Amino acid sequence: MNEGISTSPEEVNRLYEKLKREAESAGYHLNGDVGFAKSLIKGLLVNEQRYGYWSCPCRLASGDKEDDLDIICPCDYRDPDLNEHGACYCSLYVTRAVLNGERKVESIPERRLPPDERKKAKASKVADDVPSLSLPVWRCKVCGYLCAMNGPPEVCPICKAKKERFERFM
Amino acid sequence: MNEGISTSPEEVNRLYEKLKREAESAGYHLNGDVGFAKSLIKGLLVNEQRYGYWSCPCRLASGDKEDDLDIICPCDYRDPDLNEHGACYCSLYVTRAVLNGERKVESIPERRLPPDERKKAKASKVADDVPSLSLPVWRCKVCGYLCAMNGPPEVCPICKAKKERFERFM
Amino acid sequence: MNEGISTSPEEVNRLYEKLKREAESAGYHLNGDVGFAKSLIKGLLVNEQRYGYWSCPCRLASGDKEDDLDIICPCDYRDPDLNEHGACYCSLYVTRAVLNGERKVESIPERRLPPDERKKAKASKVADDVPSLSLPVWRCKVCGYLCAMNGPPEVCPICKAKKERFERFM
Repeated sequence: MNEGISTSPEEVNRLYEKLKREAESAGYHLNGDVGFAKSLIKGLLVNEQRYGYWSCPCRLASGDKEDDLDIICPCDYRDPDLNEHGACYCSLYVTRAVLNGERKVESIPERRLPPDERKKAKASKVADDVPSLSLPVWRCKVCGYLCAMNGPPEVCPICKAKKERFERFM
Repeated sequence: MNEGISTSPEEVNRLYEKLKREAESAGYHLNGDVGFAKSLIKGLLVNEQRYGYWSCPCRLASGDKEDDLDIICPCDYRDPDLNEHGACYCSLYVTRAVLNGERKVESIPERRLPPDERKKAKASKVADDVPSLSLPVWRCKVCGYLCAMNGPPEVCPICKAKKERFERFM
Repeated sequence: MNEGISTSPEEVNRLYEKLKREAESAGYHLNGDVGFAKSLIKGLLVNEQRYGYWSCPCRLASGDKEDDLDIICPCDYRDPDLNEHGACYCSLYVTRAVLNGERKVESIPERRLPPDERKKAKASKVADDVPSLSLPVWRCKVCGYLCAMNGPPEVCPICKAKKERFERFM
């Protein structure tokens, strides 16, 4: 194998079990095609050896961690993609509807900006350090959980109430 | 059985185990009378077949999901009722003090508004979509967890610190 | 044994397992020296019998719960100490880097104010009850989790993204 990188099936299985457990406990779901999910998780382990972090197995990393932060798995785009497309860019994470076969996953457009635009966006952000509520805050009407995203999560990670039980709070 | 609705003891047991696990991991507790808790959980499964959602087994649902959202279990009134009365309206969820027999549950008044007042409250809310901090925000002094409710939760769902470790934040 | 206080190894083991499970599920870690961790946990059980609450085993409690609230384990100083020193004052809780032996724990200065200054600080706080955003709010860029602390947590308790994936939100 090139670069001297190798992963064992045991490592892959261990990480699969860990990620699945953590996902379920917070209301997320790994892809139901276990073989497919494990191939992606193997990619994470390969990237860990190559770069030192879990760079997304479906995207080209720069190798500069600062630059790749947004694509370390779970990436900054996972939750918006789950909301809009039912799966993350790689389809490692899927919604319950997709897991249950009630919804099909179509191809998912890349939400990450190209390098030039990314740099510009970053530069403009540094200028005004505190983003002054750049995103809406959502409140779970059942338990009061608060989070800031473009939309509420699929289920409340605390009390497991569904998306429809959230309200705009700020 | 009328309406052709039936549930198996296995289904009830499975859902009981799931709800208990999720409750405990977030600092909530199911009623310690397991038979009583299971009878309520059976009611949830019956309502799922009847209406398509877990309508509260102790309240009359309209069958219009939009209208019943606030009484889908766990209902919007669970946490305030736990705070004030030590149990939710059905007593499916109880506080630790009730679970341990240190506190008795008295009859719990219905917190849900009658249909007419509910409609009015909803209408007035749509007018000013963002509720502009209609509820106080509580902060766990141990781990920084934030939630918005009339009062802090019984225990912090993240670090399990007790209610007394919360402070008003906003 | 003086004061008639006694704890059994079974009690200590049960509490050790419970605290370890709760810590791990929220991204915290108990000290990897199991014997050392259990000796501290035994101290918690002794203090529970002595005072009625889990007063920090490494600090002198007053016995007045209101006065000792900030040192009930986990104490108000755990998370800042994990951030700065890699361990809490007792070293019952440590960061992943310390757990993995990548970082050594040096002696940890007492962050709690002396009694006189504590009283003053409390008095000045009662004056303006709502602390009007006395602490920054951090947002997990992956899942939107919000918390208010001097800095972001080691890992997001919801989605397990690392500290570096947090941004200042308010």
